[in-house]
Amino acid sequence: MPAMTSTAAVEPLFLRACRGERTERTPIWMMRQAGRYLPSYRAVRSKASFLEMCRTPELACEVTLQPIDQFGFDAAILFSDILVTLPPMGLEVAFPEKGPVIAEPVRDRAAIDRLVVPDPVAELPYVMEAVRQIRAGLGGRAPLIGFAGAPFTLVTYAVEGGGSKDYVNTKQLLFGDPRAAHALLEKMADTVAAYLAAQVEAGAQAVQLFDSWAGILSPRDFEEYALRWAKHVIAKLRAHPGVAAARVPIIYFVNGCAPYLDSYATSGADMLGVDWRIDLATVRARVGAKVALQGNLDPGALFLEPDALRVRVEDVLAQGGGVGHVFNLGHGVTPPTNPEHVRVMVETVKARHWSHAA
Amino acid sequence: MPAMTSTAAVEPLFLRACRGERTERTPIWMMRQAGRYLPSYRAVRSKASFLEMCRTPELACEVTLQPIDQFGFDAAILFSDILVTLPPMGLEVAFPEKGPVIAEPVRDRAAIDRLVVPDPVAELPYVMEAVRQIRAGLGGRAPLIGFAGAPFTLVTYAVEGGGSKDYVNTKQLLFGDPRAAHALLEKMADTVAAYLAAQVEAGAQAVQLFDSWAGILSPRDFEEYALRWAKHVIAKLRAHPGVAAARVPIIYFVNGCAPYLDSYATSGADMLGVDWRIDLATVRARVGAKVALQGNLDPGALFLEPDALRVRVEDVLAQGGGVGHVFNLGHGVTPPTNPEHVRVMVETVKARHWSHAA
Repeated sequence: MPAMTSTAAVEPLFLRACRGERTERTPIWMMRQAGRYLPSYRAVRSKASFLEMCRTPELACEVTLQPIDQFGFDAAILFSDILVTLPPMGLEVAFPEKGPVIAEPVRDRAAIDRLVVPDPVAELPYVMEAVRQIRAGLGGRAPLIGFAGAPFTLVTYAVEGGGSKDYVNTKQLLFGDPRAAHALLEKMADTVAAYLAAQVEAGAQAVQLFDSWAGILSPRDFEEYALRWAKHVIAKLRAHPGVAAARVPIIYFVNGCAPYLDSYATSGADMLGVDWRIDLATVRARVGAKVALQGNLDPGALFLEPDALRVRVEDVLAQGGGVGHVFNLGHGVTPPTNPEHVRVMVETVKARHWSHAA
Repeated sequence: MPAMTSTAAVEPLFLRACRGERTERTPIWMMRQAGRYLPSYRAVRSKASFLEMCRTPELACEVTLQPIDQFGFDAAILFSDILVTLPPMGLEVAFPEKGPVIAEPVRDRAAIDRLVVPDPVAELPYVMEAVRQIRAGLGGRAPLIGFAGAPFTLVTYAVEGGGSKDYVNTKQLLFGDPRAAHALLEKMADTVAAYLAAQVEAGAQAVQLFDSWAGILSPRDFEEYALRWAKHVIAKLRAHPGVAAARVPIIYFVNGCAPYLDSYATSGADMLGVDWRIDLATVRARVGAKVALQGNLDPGALFLEPDALRVRVEDVLAQGGGVGHVFNLGHGVTPPTNPEHVRVMVETVKARHWSHAA
């Protein structure tokens, strides 16, 4: 297929792996790579609140580029937060140290009906400007990933008013008033689809949908409440001319995906994120060869001594096999992580060259 | 086999199901059935702290019997907390409303070495007395389940100082100093084994080991840090004369078991607890017929209207098939649950009679 060969010759490793291609080495990036484990990030953060960093394109750009400059990751990801779409919908969010707080959570039909589906370009101009500045700052060194919260995960925050231990309020909405739950999910999905399309128009070269809390559902409810609306977002994105023209890869990440692999494989995404609780090889065996996989080193493994860390990194690489695989952690890197261990991980991944038969 | 037939004729449904037998109907109990969803529990709780309730046999007995009296569950479970074993080891625990707090968490080898393996009969006499009073209060209406935290889950509390979002301190111990982690796990395991044996000697007719947080581990770490030490407890219990003589069923419950089914099946327990994130039929297909299963309705499903609730209860019953199955929730019942919906669940389970071919 000459067309594919030609594409493979010019596209970055990361984008080729997203498309399921064989790559001469496995590309790597890391969830929360622009984060508190980095001294240079903490230096910026000491002068601005988390929200100010999100809302100031120059600062968002600066911290987005830091891990690219320092470790040579194969992809950059926009510095932002999945909850930035909530205020334009009508839900104010605060970000104290202990985690996000929504003072007036959404728990009934009236509150859901008051929410709007905003125009993301008009309401979140700072995000689009950050995307443009990051693309310029990258200068082609690495592709830029845009992202958003998946509809179900955004609903958990909106309903609980923040994180939760048992998600009782969410369950009360889903099971006590399923129609209202779906009305809220639809507003989230339409907002997220428009928001990700706007990021692509501003320059994002791939997009990731984070379903951080979809793992609290039974298999049937995962399909009904999480997957259904993630598919809605993915289908809308596929139909967007800019996304379609650039063949922008869509990544869907469900944290705690192990129970749902059969349905997860049907999401329509180009690549599925895999958390650390399940072996990548198990996931590949279940989802088949049609979808790329991203993951899945336990973020805690970065606390291992370098030699033991390398063994685990090699194991994930071997399971990925250099075909349709992007190396990543199975969840975000944690603040006490030693940056030198991150360097060991990146160097181990980059040292592994695949000699695929043509 | 006349012996089995004879046993089946005299033993309670719950114990027979634990042993993997066919039962004419599926027995039911519910995790946290003595809990805040019950007005009669809240009445007791309004006059005593949680810890006072645990430490006062008369109160523990009273609330243990409430759900038996009110709903006719097929098993009672000791009212207590998995953390009661920590203070005799040398770790003080407080129970404010927002969850348990260990003011001086265990994070290094020196702190681990200071912990002792206590004599549970001498150190936790109030638990043994509660068991005796409950057995007397039950008068044979239902068997009594004793319980303890599994070693890994107790380690997470001891190390984090309470609950956690990302278990970073636990991961730092496991990966930063694996030998120290195993030393701590061994002390927990020896404590728990002795504690459960003492509960059996006091009258508990089955025991459940709660591994509430084993689901934060990768498959290899689940085997290394959670399953290995749960097996240690189970093997010690099997070797205990009182446990062996009475053939006391051992139940092992891992919350979030879906990624580990193959190794979970090797625990040595008579029955495995299954959380709501995976279908019971999937678990049965993977673990085979040699182990009984307990679960697994989503506690959130109790927020459904009665008709929809009945459909979900029937679905779990059908997946269990009336062979080696104890109906339960997939996790503890939540405080806002309507007790009348609990009644609907119990009545639905009890109305389902199995006409097994002989």
